[in-house]
Amino acid sequence: MATVNENYLKLKAGYLFPEIARRVNAFAQENPQAPIIKLGIGDVTEPLPEACRTAMIQAVEDMGDRASFKGYGPEQGYPWLREKIAALDFQSRGCDIDASEIFISDGSKCDTGNILDIFGDNNTIAVTDPVYPVYVDTNVMAGHTGQATESGKYEGLLYLPITAENNFTAEIPSEKVDLIYLCFPNNPTGATATKDHLKAWVDYAKAHEAIIFFDAAYEAFITDPTLPHSIYEIEGARDCAIEFRSFSKNAGFTGTRCALTVVPKTLTAKTSDGTKVELHKLWNRRQSTKFNGVSYIVQRGAEAVYSEAGQAQVKSLVSFYMENAKIICEKLTAAGLTVYGGVNAPYVWVKTPNNLSSWEFFDQLLSQVNVVGTPGSGFGAAGEGYFRISAFNSRENVEEAMRRITEKFKV
Amino acid sequence: MATVNENYLKLKAGYLFPEIARRVNAFAQENPQAPIIKLGIGDVTEPLPEACRTAMIQAVEDMGDRASFKGYGPEQGYPWLREKIAALDFQSRGCDIDASEIFISDGSKCDTGNILDIFGDNNTIAVTDPVYPVYVDTNVMAGHTGQATESGKYEGLLYLPITAENNFTAEIPSEKVDLIYLCFPNNPTGATATKDHLKAWVDYAKAHEAIIFFDAAYEAFITDPTLPHSIYEIEGARDCAIEFRSFSKNAGFTGTRCALTVVPKTLTAKTSDGTKVELHKLWNRRQSTKFNGVSYIVQRGAEAVYSEAGQAQVKSLVSFYMENAKIICEKLTAAGLTVYGGVNAPYVWVKTPNNLSSWEFFDQLLSQVNVVGTPGSGFGAAGEGYFRISAFNSRENVEEAMRRITEKFKV
Repeated sequence: MATVNENYLKLKAGYLFPEIARRVNAFAQENPQAPIIKLGIGDVTEPLPEACRTAMIQAVEDMGDRASFKGYGPEQGYPWLREKIAALDFQSRGCDIDASEIFISDGSKCDTGNILDIFGDNNTIAVTDPVYPVYVDTNVMAGHTGQATESGKYEGLLYLPITAENNFTAEIPSEKVDLIYLCFPNNPTGATATKDHLKAWVDYAKAHEAIIFFDAAYEAFITDPTLPHSIYEIEGARDCAIEFRSFSKNAGFTGTRCALTVVPKTLTAKTSDGTKVELHKLWNRRQSTKFNGVSYIVQRGAEAVYSEAGQAQVKSLVSFYMENAKIICEKLTAAGLTVYGGVNAPYVWVKTPNNLSSWEFFDQLLSQVNVVGTPGSGFGAAGEGYFRISAFNSRENVEEAMRRITEKFKV
Repeated sequence: MATVNENYLKLKAGYLFPEIARRVNAFAQENPQAPIIKLGIGDVTEPLPEACRTAMIQAVEDMGDRASFKGYGPEQGYPWLREKIAALDFQSRGCDIDASEIFISDGSKCDTGNILDIFGDNNTIAVTDPVYPVYVDTNVMAGHTGQATESGKYEGLLYLPITAENNFTAEIPSEKVDLIYLCFPNNPTGATATKDHLKAWVDYAKAHEAIIFFDAAYEAFITDPTLPHSIYEIEGARDCAIEFRSFSKNAGFTGTRCALTVVPKTLTAKTSDGTKVELHKLWNRRQSTKFNGVSYIVQRGAEAVYSEAGQAQVKSLVSFYMENAKIICEKLTAAGLTVYGGVNAPYVWVKTPNNLSSWEFFDQLLSQVNVVGTPGSGFGAAGEGYFRISAFNSRENVEEAMRRITEKFKV
């Protein structure tokens, strides 16, 4: 008799975004004329940069000629892409990261979930609250937690609250933790970390031989020049951190699919008898065995992000979304709502008006003004009473959504 | 102190194909003029079908216009692709498979590894010997085995030998097994399964409430019209089998990346207290949480495989490789070597001449005639004394490789 992984049964009904999609679809079916504007899921809306498209068309044409045809590529990604990333994303900012430490993948969602494969099941794990749900759910699926409590927290995880009170940056824990998920600029709150804050984490991790999973998917949206883009800007991070990056948000690759994970060769964790093992070797084995590389065509598109034209086009895309974020912040503030984030991140974290719960505000926004956002409580218990509004949409839609929201919810 | 997944340390030094690549690279560096012909890893060499390229260029252009731009797609794949697969790959052969039971992915290597995520750790697992190494290695990594023995087998797996004596079709086990990996047409031996043979497996699985993982990556290469292409051609298979398929070999997508997995909604496995759980729901949750769908551009390319032009182009590609296989079989047979497979599969399974071990024959072929194949023992202990030659190459290279091999190794 085949048995199932019973840890899956601990998962709450729906992953947040499918649940939002369900409610939106139900509303749209009952109200087919409603002019719904989606500022919920962090999905980009503007065309792919021309440099990427041109490169991908050339890559498709390469596939039509035996001489330039590409079969299986390296599971880790093509050297020409890894080298550009190492040079322009890391070395240019003083990070000592080599191309061989970069693994190209089809998404940060996959990587942040799959990374658990190479770690033991007995690690103590810390996440922030609120948090990107994939970090939690993949730990539940891997059997690293107990059941969910009434508040939606899982037994066995250490939750570090991030709220307005601590400026949405978690306090360094007093207890010992082995694996720590950090995300800056933060999804969902839009908060950022200073070099000092990251240094405190690196010091903690080194003192406790812990590993930091640093999710930098939104680094391109940083506007403040004093803020670090990579955790490797902090001395010592090579010995305690794995960094995740993505082309989804800077270059609009959510539907094209390309990301990367950095696993420095100096990074180790231990066996139960205390032997140090290089995590780079384990991740390389994992990727070689359970992954077959990203489409050649897509990798050529990602490479074009690093061309002169690509860099300019990505910068312009990012500026466009950040102008949206600015409009959201300004309009909601003017209407008397309290907002956070939106300055170095494409997300605005709004305190719900009138003490509405996150889902109440979601339902009211959807039914009364046909705007979709993301309930803060969907990201964790401490997100209750907050609401995430994404800057990913056309200018027209963002302005129209703000007009509708501020008219109805002026406080 | 963070700990590693110690199961990884049980894995033998290298995954087979990286080890081959290492030896070939070392030889090539020492002998830069050697005219190496690769018939090793099953990687296609001919251009991508024109229908697929045309569709992908259109898809890239779709990405350049806000109105047709695609962000996140459904994690399960776009309905227009799933529906064509259901109709043309399954329903047309009498298989009762619905589009909603098909999950689009970026590769069968990923899927056959990841599928273990949704099963318990206490299942008894059977693989054939020889076998596609990913099935075994992913079980080792998941902690489903003990250490490797001297013969290279892992404690805790049930190995079903497939050799010339049983016509390369495993005997149905007498003991109870929960999860069974089958691959037909077989990689590496090129053997096929009749409907009667698959029916015996389905009957066994139903009797023992076992699940069959059916890898049909090579189904397009079947030339014998009496052979089943899908396990769902067997009555009852919907209740006991998951099927994996790929665009890698039929449409030349090894570098483009697209595959699919069928998880029927009628398929269940149990919890420890005997409750039945639908595997479709678990796999859907797994894919929604740890995967973000295949590139829109690539899915459009895969869709074009089902157009009239695409079907003709794929058929012509497959025929081309099968003519190569025929040449390999004929030339080696004429030279006195014993060969299997190569009739309904792009692999020819050769008995090594002069009682050479598989790796001895590999090294001799590489150094003496500069031809790369795959040592049978790399696929399992019972593959010792065999050698896999792949039909994926140009006609010229295949003919030249056969000329060199038969001249040197005539017996």
